[in-house]
Amino acid sequence: MLSKARVKFIKSLQLKKYRKQEQCFVVEGAKSVQELLRSDFEIVLLAATEEFQQRVRPEIQKSNAELLTVKSGELDGVGEFKTNDSVLAIARIKPNAQLTIKSSEFALALDDIRDPGNLGAILRTADWYGITKLILSEETADIYNSKVIHASMGSFCRVKVYYTSLPEYLEQMNVPIYGTFLEGENVHHVNFGTGGILVIGNEANGISPAVARLVTKKITIPRVGGAESLNAAIATGIICDNIRRNT
Amino acid sequence: MLSKARVKFIKSLQLKKYRKQEQCFVVEGAKSVQELLRSDFEIVLLAATEEFQQRVRPEIQKSNAELLTVKSGELDGVGEFKTNDSVLAIARIKPNAQLTIKSSEFALALDDIRDPGNLGAILRTADWYGITKLILSEETADIYNSKVIHASMGSFCRVKVYYTSLPEYLEQMNVPIYGTFLEGENVHHVNFGTGGILVIGNEANGISPAVARLVTKKITIPRVGGAESLNAAIATGIICDNIRRNT
Repeated sequence: MLSKARVKFIKSLQLKKYRKQEQCFVVEGAKSVQELLRSDFEIVLLAATEEFQQRVRPEIQKSNAELLTVKSGELDGVGEFKTNDSVLAIARIKPNAQLTIKSSEFALALDDIRDPGNLGAILRTADWYGITKLILSEETADIYNSKVIHASMGSFCRVKVYYTSLPEYLEQMNVPIYGTFLEGENVHHVNFGTGGILVIGNEANGISPAVARLVTKKITIPRVGGAESLNAAIATGIICDNIRRNT
Repeated sequence: MLSKARVKFIKSLQLKKYRKQEQCFVVEGAKSVQELLRSDFEIVLLAATEEFQQRVRPEIQKSNAELLTVKSGELDGVGEFKTNDSVLAIARIKPNAQLTIKSSEFALALDDIRDPGNLGAILRTADWYGITKLILSEETADIYNSKVIHASMGSFCRVKVYYTSLPEYLEQMNVPIYGTFLEGENVHHVNFGTGGILVIGNEANGISPAVARLVTKKITIPRVGGAESLNAAIATGIICDNIRRNT
């Protein structure tokens, strides 16, 4: 059973301030926690129903996490999920370790993606396309936000992120840097070569001027109809599909 | 100024039940309301700041809507937006009119898209790609939900939707019907021809069996990395980009 103090602790982790202080975050639901159990994240606590425990007992034992057995319904509303009849985990936040990008690989740079749902969807999409390194501006949403973790559908376990000042980071890079601009080259005709960094701009303002001047190749997604722009996560998916089309 | 009764009425429209009863829905924010003013929707009420009114006075006059002047901050939290310092509109829901698909055009069929954010993003993406007809299963989220309206970024004004039983509707169609399945043909190699209907499946369960048997062409988005699936709206964007690549 979950004590009141535990519930309070789990709820506190919905706020970035407490996640930072405790260096912990929450993962909810069978699919995401199963991915977590297979990852190299340190798991501190698992609150799981008997039914969930039976399904993945060996992985739970390997994890060395404190295990609490809960009844169906007990986890409802404890995290972000209104209903959760399987499992909730608390895991340790990883250090913000620097990432280097080789000229033979593709990476993403997120220039102030603020919406947690968008960030989660971008992690999932990057993972689908085998892009495992993401450089995140300091104003980008926190990947340990429950909404990001949930929207990433387990992909947070497979991609690496590094929060830093994007202009400073990109300045040192000797790889092609792609960004979408209305006047860019049609993405259907771009030769993406073997590697580079794709910059995704903020939902409302696009790529910031300090980052825009470091973009070495401007590209655009051709429009047929009336919408002024595409959602940032959808644009990411479309460009990644074009990058992988010939590689 | 907005009376208490008006605020209560606007808040009631957050529920589908009251939208259906009143045949009205809410549009918030300068961008979406400007698109609404340019559309053929009947606008019942505009609650707008002086500043917003000055910007689009001719369009407001043409609309014949009742106009209320509000102070900055007065609209905060009245609709879905926490802060709204420009405008909120109430517009009339359109009748659920049947749509026919010609063999020379592309349309989308949504098979139980439940998430309002996804539905809004799909409307926006369809609009970007010049796809203006969407056939929606009865279990698909309500397009007049404020979250859908907001995520569509004005595209709800340019696309037409028709809620119906998808199996019954698709059964009568004599155009190619595309759907994503793991064993489908690589979307990069599919010849989409001049028209057809692309079915997008439910976020968790994909395309339902009753609809799957009507799909005439199975396609797939090639995966490079570890994610099990793509977000439904992102998959829509990627396939639409492939459809429009050669047309």
